[in-house]
Amino acid sequence: MERTRFVLKGDIAYSLDPTTIRTVSDGYLVCLDGKSAGVFDALPEQYAALPLLDYTGRLILPGLVDLHVHAPQYTYRALGMDLELLEWLETNTFPEERRFADLDYAARSYGKFVDDLVHSPNTRACIFATCHTDATLLLMDLLDQSGLVTMVGRVNMDRNCSDIIREESADFSLSETRRWVENAHFAHSTPIFTPRFVPTCSDEVLAGLGRLQRETGLPVQSHLSENFGEIAWVKELCPWSAFYGDVYDRFGLFGGEGCPTIMAHCVHSTPEETARMAQKGVFIAHCPQSNTNIASGIAPVRRYLDLGIPMGLGSDVAGGAILSIFRAMADAVQVSKLRWRLVDQGLKPLSAAEAFWLGTAGGGAFFGQVGSFAPGYELDAIVVDDSRLATVRPFTVEERLERCIYLSEDRDITAKFCQGRQLF
Amino acid sequence: MERTRFVLKGDIAYSLDPTTIRTVSDGYLVCLDGKSAGVFDALPEQYAALPLLDYTGRLILPGLVDLHVHAPQYTYRALGMDLELLEWLETNTFPEERRFADLDYAARSYGKFVDDLVHSPNTRACIFATCHTDATLLLMDLLDQSGLVTMVGRVNMDRNCSDIIREESADFSLSETRRWVENAHFAHSTPIFTPRFVPTCSDEVLAGLGRLQRETGLPVQSHLSENFGEIAWVKELCPWSAFYGDVYDRFGLFGGEGCPTIMAHCVHSTPEETARMAQKGVFIAHCPQSNTNIASGIAPVRRYLDLGIPMGLGSDVAGGAILSIFRAMADAVQVSKLRWRLVDQGLKPLSAAEAFWLGTAGGGAFFGQVGSFAPGYELDAIVVDDSRLATVRPFTVEERLERCIYLSEDRDITAKFCQGRQLF
Repeated sequence: MERTRFVLKGDIAYSLDPTTIRTVSDGYLVCLDGKSAGVFDALPEQYAALPLLDYTGRLILPGLVDLHVHAPQYTYRALGMDLELLEWLETNTFPEERRFADLDYAARSYGKFVDDLVHSPNTRACIFATCHTDATLLLMDLLDQSGLVTMVGRVNMDRNCSDIIREESADFSLSETRRWVENAHFAHSTPIFTPRFVPTCSDEVLAGLGRLQRETGLPVQSHLSENFGEIAWVKELCPWSAFYGDVYDRFGLFGGEGCPTIMAHCVHSTPEETARMAQKGVFIAHCPQSNTNIASGIAPVRRYLDLGIPMGLGSDVAGGAILSIFRAMADAVQVSKLRWRLVDQGLKPLSAAEAFWLGTAGGGAFFGQVGSFAPGYELDAIVVDDSRLATVRPFTVEERLERCIYLSEDRDITAKFCQGRQLF
Repeated sequence: MERTRFVLKGDIAYSLDPTTIRTVSDGYLVCLDGKSAGVFDALPEQYAALPLLDYTGRLILPGLVDLHVHAPQYTYRALGMDLELLEWLETNTFPEERRFADLDYAARSYGKFVDDLVHSPNTRACIFATCHTDATLLLMDLLDQSGLVTMVGRVNMDRNCSDIIREESADFSLSETRRWVENAHFAHSTPIFTPRFVPTCSDEVLAGLGRLQRETGLPVQSHLSENFGEIAWVKELCPWSAFYGDVYDRFGLFGGEGCPTIMAHCVHSTPEETARMAQKGVFIAHCPQSNTNIASGIAPVRRYLDLGIPMGLGSDVAGGAILSIFRAMADAVQVSKLRWRLVDQGLKPLSAAEAFWLGTAGGGAFFGQVGSFAPGYELDAIVVDDSRLATVRPFTVEERLERCIYLSEDRDITAKFCQGRQLF
């Protein structure tokens, strides 16, 4: 249903800044032309004639933003998590991703992924597909029809991975990338350049992607400093680089004017790499569950926040098992406490409010004015029926939000809006 | 429904030992007089006349065992997790537990707890109530009616906590404990002595509980070496003790012949304390989510397993937010990986099979022959409809079990049996 001028009534919460949540109990969220016109205690007279969707007693929150997820890995999430990154890729990931050469397999697999994503609390996602152009276009088509707003990447990987999945040459990788971009004409699903990571991308591919990026202005996503073995390998492959992220930067794929970039993980970034990210405005996708499951470690999120590096959360399915960014919020708080206890008591753990900000406005900024209900923001909203979680005790709206972070399940999402379009 | 001779048909999995899971696809689990008569590929002729409950295509698993959970804290789970243990108790726990002096409040609050526990995958639990005798009896009555098998403790706390909840004297604490035990006559819910922890129990109370324990032979549960501040406090309060657990031991509340004992947490146990637990067969309740939420740290579970210390998992609601022991299994694997990465690469992370064993037969041993389908074990079983989790890829029964650990929700439990009684 296209419905871009309406009012939502219910218990509303959203972040004003990384540490402050505004709540309005029994309030009104006004949507005009797909954008928020504000949140009000009482409905202003000028909006009285708009259709009102009454969710009294339910929570109304900004849609959540997943900055890093691998769609083809959804088929085997929650399996085989006894390996570290590089072995995990060869054992679990590449044999599965290979199957997406088969468009029928891709349609069935991606169909389930998109269906579950629609019913999750997430309204935006930055997605890795595979190196298969047609399957990637198919995924984008499915996502586009869903009404979600997504950026999707056809993956480049032309070296250092098993024959079954390696692209035949840099030329092939780049010409297919061009064919993909030229055919990716969807309203709500747009292309994002996606070199898998430095170890599987030749200099020629990275250079070619840098040229394509400058030509098109499209954004970029990749992986960075996730695992010690990976970092050592990059140093070996690119001895000329100052640090891992410097490789992307040399090829023009690391933020800066006209090149919006997300780097997933940044668990073990050096001070130099961190400074470069801050300088160039590279977004970090913090993926706490994945970093735990494949034993990568815990990213110093507090340090990145203090430096003002733009950041959001990623489910990183299938390194992570769970699509919901509520779970990523809980995981982010939890691992920050363990890092504080075990590694560095100089970095204070995250609060629930900070994790909520990361999973909404923090990551939403990669999409523009997204992740808040402040006037002018695109209206992504979810309605959460948290009555299942009620106890004998009363809770404030902010307490109910915190409990949703830890306890909500996808089935609790009872309505969902993206850019003012109602998805269900 | 009382039904103690029957056959369950479905995809069956259970632990043979801490590292080995036996699976039987489309198999038969035979229950005779509340106990397992075995799991079979084909139904033996002598059982052909028994009623058959057909759960073809669903998973049949042992009921899960929660070795540590605080029933009164269920009202505020998933809230206020920005404090460490000692402040957390004063701020969140004690003001809530005080309300259980009111039997009407207790009935409403415990009613919700018991209802949710019934619909969780757990069939057994060792539960802390509060220091209120009548509310504790009320909880035991509700649990008894549910058909779950539980051990429940009236909590002793006669010092070092706010006036609102502190028992008025050691004599009062002990005489109420005696009154509670004398009135706790339930079929499926039995008393367990529950000194809250050393800081809130005077020597007199601990000595009196030791005498009561010897008199009755009832088991014991408490907390041990959870948090650095707590451990330092115990050393200050009991300078004569060799280590924290030595205090319980001096009063006869720390395992050994005729004194089954569970100690929750053991995050920071010294080698001496660990050796004493091994020597006296003290059960450890490993509570990974709670140890994360209140930033206590990560227990060295691999070390305890290697030493043969009996052990199971605890939800530790409301230090933990989630009742399901599936979640505790996932958390146990995950924090063991972080401990391996950040603290000690000498202690290998837990496997999913080991976590499953901990949450079934490992903890089940505290209840006797519980947590397995080997012949002679009490028949606790859950039926899991995991069709929601299916993808385009086929999965073995063991893979489906691993996915349940990470992905199942309570609503996926579609039938439940405890000692052969069908709860739903």
